[in-house]
This record gives sequence, structure tokens and C-alpha cells, in this order.
Amino acid sequence: MDEHSVGIVAPQVARFDKALSFSDGPTLPNYELVYETYGELNASASNGVLICHALSGHHHAAGRHSAEDRKPGWWDACIGPGKPIDTRRFFVVSLNNLGGCHGSTGPTSINPATGEAWGPEFPQPRVEDWVDAQAQLADHLGIDCWAAVIGGSLGGMQAMSWSLRYPERIRHCIVIAAATKLSAQNIAFNEIARRAILSDPNYAEGYYLRGSQRPTQGLALARMVGHVTYLSDDAMASRFGRELQEQGETEAANSAPEFQVESYLRYQGSQFSTAFDANTYLLMTRALDRFDLAQPYGDDVVEAFRQAQCEFLVLSFSTDWRFSPARSREIVDALVAAERPVSYAEIAADEGHDAFLLPIARYLAVFDAYLQRVTI
Amino acid sequence: MDEHSVGIVAPQVARFDKALSFSDGPTLPNYELVYETYGELNASASNGVLICHALSGHHHAAGRHSAEDRKPGWWDACIGPGKPIDTRRFFVVSLNNLGGCHGSTGPTSINPATGEAWGPEFPQPRVEDWVDAQAQLADHLGIDCWAAVIGGSLGGMQAMSWSLRYPERIRHCIVIAAATKLSAQNIAFNEIARRAILSDPNYAEGYYLRGSQRPTQGLALARMVGHVTYLSDDAMASRFGRELQEQGETEAANSAPEFQVESYLRYQGSQFSTAFDANTYLLMTRALDRFDLAQPYGDDVVEAFRQAQCEFLVLSFSTDWRFSPARSREIVDALVAAERPVSYAEIAADEGHDAFLLPIARYLAVFDAYLQRVTI
Repeated sequence: MDEHSVGIVAPQVARFDKALSFSDGPTLPNYELVYETYGELNASASNGVLICHALSGHHHAAGRHSAEDRKPGWWDACIGPGKPIDTRRFFVVSLNNLGGCHGSTGPTSINPATGEAWGPEFPQPRVEDWVDAQAQLADHLGIDCWAAVIGGSLGGMQAMSWSLRYPERIRHCIVIAAATKLSAQNIAFNEIARRAILSDPNYAEGYYLRGSQRPTQGLALARMVGHVTYLSDDAMASRFGRELQEQGETEAANSAPEFQVESYLRYQGSQFSTAFDANTYLLMTRALDRFDLAQPYGDDVVEAFRQAQCEFLVLSFSTDWRFSPARSREIVDALVAAERPVSYAEIAADEGHDAFLLPIARYLAVFDAYLQRVTI
Repeated sequence: MDEHSVGIVAPQVARFDKALSFSDGPTLPNYELVYETYGELNASASNGVLICHALSGHHHAAGRHSAEDRKPGWWDACIGPGKPIDTRRFFVVSLNNLGGCHGSTGPTSINPATGEAWGPEFPQPRVEDWVDAQAQLADHLGIDCWAAVIGGSLGGMQAMSWSLRYPERIRHCIVIAAATKLSAQNIAFNEIARRAILSDPNYAEGYYLRGSQRPTQGLALARMVGHVTYLSDDAMASRFGRELQEQGETEAANSAPEFQVESYLRYQGSQFSTAFDANTYLLMTRALDRFDLAQPYGDDVVEAFRQAQCEFLVLSFSTDWRFSPARSREIVDALVAAERPVSYAEIAADEGHDAFLLPIARYLAVFDAYLQRVTI
């Protein structure tokens, strides 16, 4: 373990016996949230930072679960001693959202009403429902007000939602590579991913947990779509170009990959498809599609942000074409019009949407400089 | 029929009993090409124009097959009396390429060696093989030299290949929304489309014609991927925005489309999947992936274009992100460096890659002006 790692971490589980009503109707009678914390909560509980995860993310954002763990948490680049989200100053909380498949109550959990896994019957949450559950977790941890709520992509949507829904419980809102709502193109890509899952015969109308088959082909395909759209054309070009695979040259009627990029995508898709739950993937993409920050405010983003009382940092990446800098600038413009304090940086990066996960020097520097001036 | 239509047209079939050797080895002992012609071949056979189709295209480029035909050919916007490819001046030839599923010899044709459909055993053609077959068709029609060879997208690759492979048989080469080779991102999208087909259980390793099932789900999904990437973000936004479907609002665990864009994509995918052959789709995307104009010339595009003797028109569309204007400018720069005469226009259009099929005023004007100065 290096000195900038949070070291060995262990997930914890919080159980809530209070019912949670979802925006679209159904109520969860009780639920569990799995989470990790890094750093120490100070005496005044003023140094809490909440990390909101994206589509396929989870609670394990930093450190390792054992000394043998090959990979650290998904945002280890940004969380740890001396990193932007500095665990020497902040008490960092990272959870798995409701509907997830990493320990929080979701489609793979048992539905108490039936004694079977929820499967496709798990209630569809909205971003706002996740935020409500996160507020319950804050209560559980004794945190009245977060020093900052931070998220990238779908996580950025949760952070923005916090600023409107619990304006007195958040002092800084950090929104990375996000948008106030998806574009039609983004929805279309998500729809393709969902179709891939739904048309896999092993999906079995969502009840695949009753049998031994899993819709891995569909889920792999869904992940491949995501993967291509999260990378920039340039990033793919520099990583793979048009390099051919060593074997399996050019046989007709052959399904072997020819180009390295094909083999890489298949590997990524296949890895993901055995580690993730298909119903969770459907549910997460639906929540992403449905999020529309301004909709409850007469479709007026400025009016929406007038609810907020915190300060904002908005970050985007030059080659991100799924959540382009233009979408971040819409957020910034609306915040300025709503007279909210906002800092903005567009980071030059070749890696597309995925850049928000990577240790890009200027990104880390801007992120770090902002959080250093957050008082605790 | 309006005065700018070629009117009622009928496909013709040319049979070739001369074997055709494919670049990657296999030989077709004989083959048929289905084609249409519009206009009249002049006495000196100097007014022939060849149309090369793109991924899912075919020979029916203009006019209608009957008075009741609801839709004209796929490039009716550009072909006809008074249109850019003016049938009062030119004799226009449009064919279905080898491996197609609209009448030319392809995976759905009978393999004489087995008495069964070729299916997945149909030899994989390269763009160059299509061009060779097109040259046979030119011989058959008595055309020594085309006034112009014209194509968009994959068709543009064929047009460029003509200029290198048969430099003395082409006077003008019109390359629309194309590239000298695909990028890794483009290959990745094609790989996703192929995966969708290959992982459909009804694909049956390509032998689906032996049974009654077709891999329509996989093919629909493949088409959806294509469709999203051929449209621009702006085009999708203005056409669909985030409009919800009238019914099927927001039920959990529901596979009904919520947004209009979802319903549109499913409709497009479903229409296509019953009208197109899956093996043809695989074969066409492979040919697209493998095309690399400069590869036989030491990866030097300038050296490649030194083989050409014709004049060039290169066109691109501002919001086309699969074959972006930057890729067209690479072609233009190489032609300039190779000292070939070239005209170039980037057309402002919201419709992405699909723009090349649409009647966009400046596009038609530039196209028309160029072809008017082609002598016949």
C-alpha cells in the first residue's frame, strides 16, 4: 500500500426499517444500503463528503478489500491521503444505490412479500429516490450537512439533485461530466443496451434468477455499447488503431475477432456480464433516462437552481461526447443566471467520458484546489 | 409521377459465367448481378454513371417499381431529370453488390456445389472485389469508361477504389461522406452490430435459412446501433427531444418504450430485420472494416492516389460523426499532395451521416454544379 491509498477497507451495511416511498409510486417497506467510509468523521460532523456512483458503479470507491486485491476501488485516483478528496481532512462516504447489485437492496435481494428475489419486480427508482435514501444514510451516520456531495455522470445528477432537494444539507456540490437531462441520442444508446438484454432468451422476462442461466450475452452487448460511447474516437484510435489480432486473420464466415478493438470489447463485455445483474442495469439506465432536473420547475433550469444554497464546481472533459462540455456549460450558465456561486473547468483529455475516472493531472489539480478551500 | 422522377423502373439481371477470384482467396465460379438503369446510354457510351451503394443499400436507387410503390429508390433525391445526377444527360447504372440480399449472388443464393443456400459460407468480398464485379458489369453494358463513379459512405470507398484499380475507366470520382479507412470507433460499432446478430440464438451459426426462424432480434439491434450512429445528436434532439410516448408511461419492470426515440428505433430495427439478410449484414460490415485504401501502397494515401487519373469531388457533412469532415479532408489533402484535381465542400447539415441521402439545398447545388461540367 502506498502512502496515498486509504489502505484496506471493509464495506458496512446500514439497515432501514422505515419505509421509503418511490417517486413513481411503489414503496420499499425496508431496505439495506451497503457503504464504505474513508477517513474520520470530525467532532462537529462537518467534514462528510458523499460520493455518488454512476451507472455501473458501487460503494467500493477507494482502497482494497484485502492485501491480495488486484484492483483498488473505482475512484482510487481521486480519493485518499493527499488526493483531491483528501481523507486526511474529509470523512468520505460511498454507497451502493438502491436497486444496485453490490449489496444494497435491489433486484437480486429477497422480496419479503414473496420470499423470492425481486428480479424485474423491484420498484424503479428515480435519481431523487436515491438521494432520499442517501439522506437516510446521512442521518444514520449523524451527518446533518455534507461538506460536499460529489459525483460523475449519473453521480453528478445525484449531486445536483441533492442541491435542490436538501439545500440546507449540502455546502458544496461537485458535478463532473454530467447534464441536467439526457439527450435523445443518449436515451437511444441506453435503449439499445436495454434491447440487448431484453432480447437475450436467458433474460426470461427478468426471472433468470429462478434458473441457472443468466442473460450474459445481452449484458455483454449492453456493456460494449456503453464502453464505445464512453471512450472518445481519439482514445480508441491511439489505444487500438486498426491493429489486427495476432491470429484469426481473415477467414470468411468466421466470428473470431479480427481487430484488437473487437477482442478488447468482447473481453470487457464478457467480464462485466458475469459480475453485474441485468435487472440492475436496466433499472440504472431507466433512472438515467428519466432524470430531468428542471422538469418539476416548469422546465426552467434557472428556476430549479434557485432552490440551491450551496457552491458548485462543474467539470467537463474535452472529448466526452456522451456528456459533452456543452452540456456542462448549460449547467454553469443556469447557475450563473440563478446567481449561485460556480467554478467551471473544461479539462483537455483524450479519454472521452471515461476521463472522469482517470488520474489526469489538470483534472486532479483543479479538483484538489477546489476541495482545499472547502472549510470543515 | 412528377417531372423530376425517373418514373417506373424495373431491375435487370446480368449473369457472368466467368469465375471471379476474391482478394482473400475464394473464387465464385459464376454470379449474377441485379441492377437498374436510368436514362439512355449515348452512342459513344461516354455518359455512363455508376452508383455504388452503402452498407444496407441495393440497386433500386431511383424511381418506383410500380405506380402503387409507396417509396421511391434510396437516392431518388439525387437521381432524375433535373436532379444532380441528371438522367436527361447521364446513363445511370445502379447495382446490388455481390454478397447482397436483393437479387445479386449472395448468402441467400444457392451454392451450386451444395444445392443449398450459401449462408455463412458465402465468400467474404472486399471492396476491391465489388469493384472488379462492377467492371464486369461495365463490360457487359459496353461501357469502357464511366463519366463518373459516385458513392456515399461505403459507396464512396468503392468509388475511390475504382480510381486506383481502373484509372483509365473513370473520368470523375465522387466521394461522399467517406474515409480511406474506418477508425477504431467505427469498427467497434460494427463489432457490436455483428455481436448482436451472432448472439441471437436464431442465427444458428449462420444456417438459419435451413429452418423457419430468422435472427430478427439480433438484426434489429444491429440496425438500431447503425441508426443512432448515422444520425447526429442534434438531429435526434430536434426530431424526438425527450418526448414521451403517449402510452406506457413509467411502469417498473416494463419493457414498453417510454420515449418516442425508443419507439422509433424499435420500429426501424424491426422493419429492417424482416427485409434484410443477417449474413449479408455481417459480410457488408466486414468489408467496410477491412477497407484500407492506402494499405497496398505502404500505408501512404498520397502514393495510393498517384495511381488515379480522374478528377475528384469530395463532399462531407458538418454533423456526420461516423465519417466526419476531418476524414474527408484527409482524402482531399492526400489528393492535393498527389497533384490530382479535387473539389471539396463541407455541407452544413443537422442530419449526421444520413445527410448524404437527403435533399439538402446546398448539397444538391454543389453536386449539380460539379456534374454539369462533366463532359459526355
